[in-house]
Amino acid sequence: MRTLVLFLSLLAAAQAAVNSPAGGTAGRPNIVFIISDDHGTDALGCYGNPVIKTPALDALAADGTRFTHAFGTTASCSPSRSVILSGLHNHRNGMYGLEHQVHHFQSFGDVKGLPVLLEAAGYRTARIGKFHVAPESVYRFQTVLSGGAANDPASLGRSPVEMADRTREFLSARDERPFFLFYATDDPHRANEVLPSGKPTFDTYPRPNRFGNRDAGYPGVTPVTYRPQDVIVPPFLPDTPECRAELAEYYQSVSRLDQGVGRLVQLLKEAGQYERTLIVYISDNGVAFPGAKTTVYDPGLRLPCIVKAPGRKQPGTVQPAMISWTDLTPTLLDFAGALPAAATFHGRSFRGGIDGGGLTGWDEVYASHTLHEVTMYYPMRSIRTRQHKLIVNLASGLAYPFALDLKQSPTWIGVQKAGGAIYGKRPIAQFIHRPQFELYDLTTDPDEVRNLADDPQHQALKQTLITRLRAFQERTLDPWIHKWDYE
Amino acid sequence: MRTLVLFLSLLAAAQAAVNSPAGGTAGRPNIVFIISDDHGTDALGCYGNPVIKTPALDALAADGTRFTHAFGTTASCSPSRSVILSGLHNHRNGMYGLEHQVHHFQSFGDVKGLPVLLEAAGYRTARIGKFHVAPESVYRFQTVLSGGAANDPASLGRSPVEMADRTREFLSARDERPFFLFYATDDPHRANEVLPSGKPTFDTYPRPNRFGNRDAGYPGVTPVTYRPQDVIVPPFLPDTPECRAELAEYYQSVSRLDQGVGRLVQLLKEAGQYERTLIVYISDNGVAFPGAKTTVYDPGLRLPCIVKAPGRKQPGTVQPAMISWTDLTPTLLDFAGALPAAATFHGRSFRGGIDGGGLTGWDEVYASHTLHEVTMYYPMRSIRTRQHKLIVNLASGLAYPFALDLKQSPTWIGVQKAGGAIYGKRPIAQFIHRPQFELYDLTTDPDEVRNLADDPQHQALKQTLITRLRAFQERTLDPWIHKWDYE
Repeated sequence: MRTLVLFLSLLAAAQAAVNSPAGGTAGRPNIVFIISDDHGTDALGCYGNPVIKTPALDALAADGTRFTHAFGTTASCSPSRSVILSGLHNHRNGMYGLEHQVHHFQSFGDVKGLPVLLEAAGYRTARIGKFHVAPESVYRFQTVLSGGAANDPASLGRSPVEMADRTREFLSARDERPFFLFYATDDPHRANEVLPSGKPTFDTYPRPNRFGNRDAGYPGVTPVTYRPQDVIVPPFLPDTPECRAELAEYYQSVSRLDQGVGRLVQLLKEAGQYERTLIVYISDNGVAFPGAKTTVYDPGLRLPCIVKAPGRKQPGTVQPAMISWTDLTPTLLDFAGALPAAATFHGRSFRGGIDGGGLTGWDEVYASHTLHEVTMYYPMRSIRTRQHKLIVNLASGLAYPFALDLKQSPTWIGVQKAGGAIYGKRPIAQFIHRPQFELYDLTTDPDEVRNLADDPQHQALKQTLITRLRAFQERTLDPWIHKWDYE
Repeated sequence: MRTLVLFLSLLAAAQAAVNSPAGGTAGRPNIVFIISDDHGTDALGCYGNPVIKTPALDALAADGTRFTHAFGTTASCSPSRSVILSGLHNHRNGMYGLEHQVHHFQSFGDVKGLPVLLEAAGYRTARIGKFHVAPESVYRFQTVLSGGAANDPASLGRSPVEMADRTREFLSARDERPFFLFYATDDPHRANEVLPSGKPTFDTYPRPNRFGNRDAGYPGVTPVTYRPQDVIVPPFLPDTPECRAELAEYYQSVSRLDQGVGRLVQLLKEAGQYERTLIVYISDNGVAFPGAKTTVYDPGLRLPCIVKAPGRKQPGTVQPAMISWTDLTPTLLDFAGALPAAATFHGRSFRGGIDGGGLTGWDEVYASHTLHEVTMYYPMRSIRTRQHKLIVNLASGLAYPFALDLKQSPTWIGVQKAGGAIYGKRPIAQFIHRPQFELYDLTTDPDEVRNLADDPQHQALKQTLITRLRAFQERTLDPWIHKWDYE
């Protein structure tokens, strides 16, 4: 009889294991990694914008930790995603520029991406929406719920609620293993329109770019629209009718992706997985306007980062440590109990700071940008502390190159047509023709317009920052380091 | 009885087919494609150098056709090889720069390379020696007789007679199909030396770079050495002791590769294949000195091209048509009877000119160079006619970047140490800081030192050449064409 009871108990346990909802084994959390496209901190309720409606992201922040000083390392989609998914600066992982079409960059074959490492640690992995990195072998997910080319209006990445719905089966599968879901929206990227000739364009001047908004709407999305007069024009943008109209479209796109996040959280709760799931929300780089995306200025690199960890005690936490996107892969591996003992990443785990404290000395971040489109060679390296930013423009002899979506933006075209000399707070000539060094005091000059690099009072500081930047380049095997000796 | 005779005849025919030496079916020739590394027309007996000893190549020219106006399209190894093996400018095949290590460029996956096309046409294919293109799928050979990394002193590509010997089995295999052999030497490229620290360097100053020569010699090679006082210093190089010593080493390296060619021809003759084999000799780009390699000046792009076709009647032919490396793939496919009817290449077949005539109107070539090393962004486009060359430097705001092997060359270091202002016939300042446009009259200024781009007398010509160059960029889908509108 005892044997029978034991047998039945074992059977029940085995049955329970088979039928148990996903995740939770050995205390390892599920991971839902939400990444949006070109979303700055300028357009998020929980980051201080009182106009935009982002209730789902705000709720996530209220339930988790909001990082106030989180930084991308390059304001370009594919390179930034390669950093996020490898923990290595893109000058070291090989993804020097965009992945798609003629740009054709990809990471070195021996890089091991986050999904590959999590799979090796026993996770089941899936991605949905925008990918934009290569090669597949480096960043391979077991399940591809949707693919889609970059800038393709037909991509599922524009339909965030539908995207969330398509993850339902993956999230609720009866499987022993914890899961890793990579949920990547195309919103709020600028959108192509197709001309009568069949040629795509971002240029809709004088109409604003629609940022993916469309009259037909998207399944499950209740459009949230904004009036141009209500939006908040950040200091780096011109307060023009074109810009306000575009910001209104951008806000609408952000509110749409927010509804996708809301649905995803709802599905996690329905599946009984919300509590045991680590949820991360970030963007690859800042908003798609000249002055943000493809620059190393703060509007391009200072980004939203919301982390809702399982089992936390103090929701609504704010974490002021300076973190960068090189830290994401080590942090997620740390949560998964799979962080290698020997440091192989450029970043480090910020897991210890998830309760708001614990990260003393996290007071500097580095950026490394080389190309966006293949024709846009403009390598920049920078170090940012709490007070200062030093930028080295390695190709300062060139005119600053414009990404196609920015050059064709009605906001930029409007400024050009008006013949103005200032864009936001910055002279256009200064934006296009840059000196080798830029040095800003962010305390007195948060908009980075007063270059102190030639100021006699700042030479000692400049040299100190140069020394630290060069050491960073040495440490991270930056091929461009030899430009210090030539050019 | 008749049936038996017929049966025996068929049997004999089948047997003969099985035992017959390779090639020759349907009149399609075998193809032996010999490509050297950094060999200019300056160092070849049959191209007019009375000092250097290149008996095998001279014999090949005597037995075939020597092209006097053959041009590479980019003076950089991987990009040039990608053009040679695809018939497409590298701005269109995706191989914008070097393939190895951190440079990491490769062609688009949908490009179909020459070996793939010849295999589809029924050829058996093999390569030996330097490859330096990617991905493998685009440029796949059925048989890899040797691989070897770029700049690896241990590569078989430095041992040309040994290389030839290793092709023996492939050349003499009993196989119905014609063959395509790609025989690529590392000679006469500059060679790395390994420092006591284990770090490789090209810098041996004040000793000359050895260009692969070594005291131990190479199997089957009888070293041919030269005295520095005997070499001919071409006008683009400085007549200094360092340069003469390096030219002597370069000559020795060329004479070594010549012996490899000699052995290869000997093996073809022994296998009874010489007569039915198309043999091509070219180099990827000009000699590895500043002023040639990585430039679009003639020393970098005007290259040897010797073609020995089967069944020709007039050996020793000279062909003055202006051909470029985009023409090689269509020409070889034409010889193989496999040239697609619809034009898919940027070049065209020069098969019709193999007897010395037949190529009327072949009076212009184009060059397109974008990067060499990944840090060496310096896009140039040029059109060269019989009399003129127009160069557009798309990044003229940058200092001209030096390839590592050229920057570390004892010849260049010697000039730097001497503090001279002239290198060859060109002011160093002019070599390093280039204007957007360069226009040369090659009739009166073959060394390309008197820039006529701003000369009032030449503005109409300049505009005409610009128009033709832009049309070329349009036609070949050059991503850099938009630089005409910006920068």
